Order: sequence, then C-alpha cells, then structure tokens
Amino acid sequence: MTIRAAYQGEPGAFSQTAAKKLLGAEVISVPFRTFEEMFDSIAAGSADCCVTPIENSLAGSIHRNYDLLLASRLEIFGETKLRIVHNLIAPAGTALDEVRRVYSHPVALAQCGRFLRQHPEFEALPVHDTAGAVRLVVENRHGCEAAIASEAAAEIYGAEILIREVEDNRENYTRFLLVAPPEVPVHPIENHAANRRKTSLVLQIANKPGSLFRALGIFALANIDLSKIESRPIEGKPWEYAFYIDVIGSASEPPLSRAIETLRDAADEAKVLGTYPDGLSDS
Amino acid sequence: MTIRAAYQGEPGAFSQTAAKKLLGAEVISVPFRTFEEMFDSIAAGSADCCVTPIENSLAGSIHRNYDLLLASRLEIFGETKLRIVHNLIAPAGTALDEVRRVYSHPVALAQCGRFLRQHPEFEALPVHDTAGAVRLVVENRHGCEAAIASEAAAEIYGAEILIREVEDNRENYTRFLLVAPPEVPVHPIENHAANRRKTSLVLQIANKPGSLFRALGIFALANIDLSKIESRPIEGKPWEYAFYIDVIGSASEPPLSRAIETLRDAADEAKVLGTYPDGLSDS
Repeated sequence: MTIRAAYQGEPGAFSQTAAKKLLGAEVISVPFRTFEEMFDSIAAGSADCCVTPIENSLAGSIHRNYDLLLASRLEIFGETKLRIVHNLIAPAGTALDEVRRVYSHPVALAQCGRFLRQHPEFEALPVHDTAGAVRLVVENRHGCEAAIASEAAAEIYGAEILIREVEDNRENYTRFLLVAPPEVPVHPIENHAANRRKTSLVLQIANKPGSLFRALGIFALANIDLSKIESRPIEGKPWEYAFYIDVIGSASEPPLSRAIETLRDAADEAKVLGTYPDGLSDS
Repeated sequence: MTIRAAYQGEPGAFSQTAAKKLLGAEVISVPFRTFEEMFDSIAAGSADCCVTPIENSLAGSIHRNYDLLLASRLEIFGETKLRIVHNLIAPAGTALDEVRRVYSHPVALAQCGRFLRQHPEFEALPVHDTAGAVRLVVENRHGCEAAIASEAAAEIYGAEILIREVEDNRENYTRFLLVAPPEVPVHPIENHAANRRKTSLVLQIANKPGSLFRALGIFALANIDLSKIESRPIEGKPWEYAFYIDVIGSASEPPLSRAIETLRDAADEAKVLGTYPDGLSDS
C-alpha cells in the first residue's frame, strides 16, 4: 500500500521534498493549507502520516508545531534535514534582464535581501507561499515576472531556474519530523538514516535552582548523549518550564528506558514523543 | 538627550511599541527595513540602540538575531515582553459588512486563520508588513478593505479597530532585547522592570556525554537560577553545539562572576551578552 503523507503548503513546498526524502519518491503527498488541518488529517483518515517542519537553523524551533504534536496522539517515527535553497524561477523563455516583478513568501524574500538589493529593477511582491509564487508566474506568463522558490516547485510547474541559490545565508536548514499514530506506525525508508536511534522527550520541571541539572544528571550518569535541549516558559504558569530534549538511544531499551523511569520520579512530567532513526548525521 | 532607538519594520510595528515600553514614549524610534541594517545603524551613528525581537512563544527563538547580536559589538541592557494582539483595522467609516479584502503579513494572516475562515467573504492578501497593511488600506480608502495589525498601527494611521483580538491563540508573546554599545550604554526606564538582574550567555561546548551537565553543575552548585537554555547545532561543525543560557544575577558580582570564571575553564567558549534588569516577570 502506498503511504499517504500529509504536509502543509502547496505542491513543491520544502515539506513535500522532505516527505519524498523520508518515504521515497512514490509517496502520495497530500497538501493542507494549515498545520492544524494537516495534523487533523490523520484522525480524519485522509492521510497515514504527517511530515512537519519542527526547527530551522536561522528561525529556531517552531513551538506551535511542538504544541500540535503534543496535543495529538501521534508519535515521531523519523526525521530529516533539508538545506533551504532559494532560486529565481520564471516561465520557460523568460530572459533575466526582462524580469521586473519577483513574487515569494515574505520570509523567503527577506532571506534573499542581498540578492534583491543587487537588482533594484525588481519589485519584490509578497504572496502566501513560495511554491504558489511559481504557480502564479507560470499562470500569468507576463514575461517580466519571476518567483523565489525551491527547485522542486520549478519542476512541478515546468518553470526554469534563472539563478540558483539566491539566499543570503547558505547555513539555512530545516529539520522535519515524520509523525504517525503509534498503532499504525510509518517508518522512513531503509537507506535514509543512520542505524543509531534517537528519542525525543518533553519534560515539565518546576523551576527550582538545580532542577534541570538534576534531571540532566540522570542522562549524564548513564552516559546518554544529548543532541538537543530547549527550555520553553509555560505561559500562564510563571516559573514553570517545559524542556524539549533529544537523546541518543531507544526509549524501550536500557540505559535510556531506565533513565526515563528515574526521570519520571524526578520530573513533574516526562512524555516520550518517539524513538526513531537519527536522520541528522547523514547529511 | 533623547535616545534614538533603531527597530525593524514600519511605524506601528510591535518593535516600536517595545521600544516605547523600554525607553518611554518620548524615545525617537528609527525604522529600518532589515535586521542587518538595524544592527549596522549603531556603528553608522544613526541610532543609539536597537530594540530587536529575539524569541516568540509560538515561533521560538530567532537564531538569526542571536547571530547578528553575536557578530556585533553590542551588549544587552534590557528586555521586555509584548503580547502580540492582532486586530481587524480599517479606515474610519468602513462598515464591517462591507469588508471584502484583508491585508497583512502572511504570518499574521496564518495566526488569524480561525477568524478568517469564519469570514469566507474576506479575501486574505499578503503584504510585507502588518503596519504597512494599515498604511495601504488608509491610502486606498476603497471602503471594502481592512488590515490585520497592532493597535499602535491603527493609531499611527488614524484608522479604526473594527474587531479586537482576532488571533487564534492568545498565548502569543514576543520577547524584545534592548542592545547598545558597551561604552555608551542605554538603560531601560526606571519603572520598567524588576530590580532583579539577569545575565545572558552563549556557551560553546564540545558534545561529549555529560559536558552540558558539568557546565550546568557550576550554576546549580552556586544556587544560580536558570531562566532559559537552548542548544543550537553549529552548522559545519557536526557534534558541536552553542548553548544560549539566561541566568538570574549580575555577571560582575558573585556568585555569578565566579561561576562564569569556572565555566570559562570548563567550556570551549563562554561569552557574556549582557547583564540587565529582568523584564519578563513584570507582565
């Protein structure tokens, strides 16, 4: 059975590329307008899993998507990292020196600020979605319009890349998670990631001096490697924090299984979001 | 001498409101198009300080602005937190039932998704900036156009709030930093914040199991309270991490001064970003 992966955005969005990287080119990718609708699609039966961005090297963790994941019954089964490359894209036959209007999402336009300033003849115009910008200029075929978007968006709409890699900062990576219901797991394709397994946890700890130190001590004393830690104030509860923690190991095997048990005694709450192949060290 | 505070965005942006909250209503706020231009304005002599967003309760830490702060010679002298409230705003005299087009930044439009879906008669149109959306509809005066933006933007352009608080999630806060050159400090107004002082640090630690635990132990053993911790992979250096840490206390007074000295022996690099009045516990 072919897997149906829900993602947010239009065809050609980076999330769709991440879905193909995680699940193979034959995955059926199902676009949703919002992250809420994407998460809801599993319970509604219109998709088997979601591929969601969770953090970006320039913009940070997407707390809202952590919230949606926590509020859902879904578990993490995989992860991958994509370099976010922005290209100047136009309908076939458009000459670079005829381009006057450039459409993209304002965040993408801002990430290409240097390039746009080098071309004062371009008027930068905001739209909802980078891939949608390519669709727009291909539909218009005005001869003077281009979009800033991914290579995948250019391919989908049969448009041409006029200039590759027009972003200011090449260290722009987004991490995506593959999430699915625990009773119907969806695993990433074999050759995708390292054999090493990783576990994501959310801890809720009262903010007393040293409380995080004691919780981390449980991992340190068991020689468990941390690959991410992030505190987040819990709004409405001053001085209480949630911690997002990724550790190397499987939640169902020692030493991590024992460490999590100990942690549950020490922390107010410890929720395992999933154990999955480490997908960040491969790229 | 009146203080000139640089901010990113158009007049009416949330950053401008944060500048007034930090420095008083009489501050001269100087708008810049990009965060890079805003940070550069201090060396260029066109502003005395910057007021920059650094993290949001839904969208996470803005790593790019941490990078700009680290690359600059500037120090943190203050902080504040604003609740991000979105309002439906139109030129005076516009009737709600005549509104057909709603302009805003796509991120703001997405944060008001529920409201917009309740009004299928509205066409949501993306623009570069929330405050710029108000300026646009006030200039157009089409009678059927509105913007989603802050109350401050409505005031600046003499527009009316048709509906207040149209955002999906009220737990939407942005933390702003006041940064200035160490040799010409700019301090927040007296009654702004608590007397308690806070210090921001960036640590660079080799990723060996337990290395963060040992670094945090230095704080825990001195009874120093952590108010934020966030790891960030250093791109191009696999398995090396930077940690953003906020602690309660002043970097120039014990116990924190001594803890930082000890930390510098244990960590590859420890940079103090500034000591400043705790501005988060007041709101």
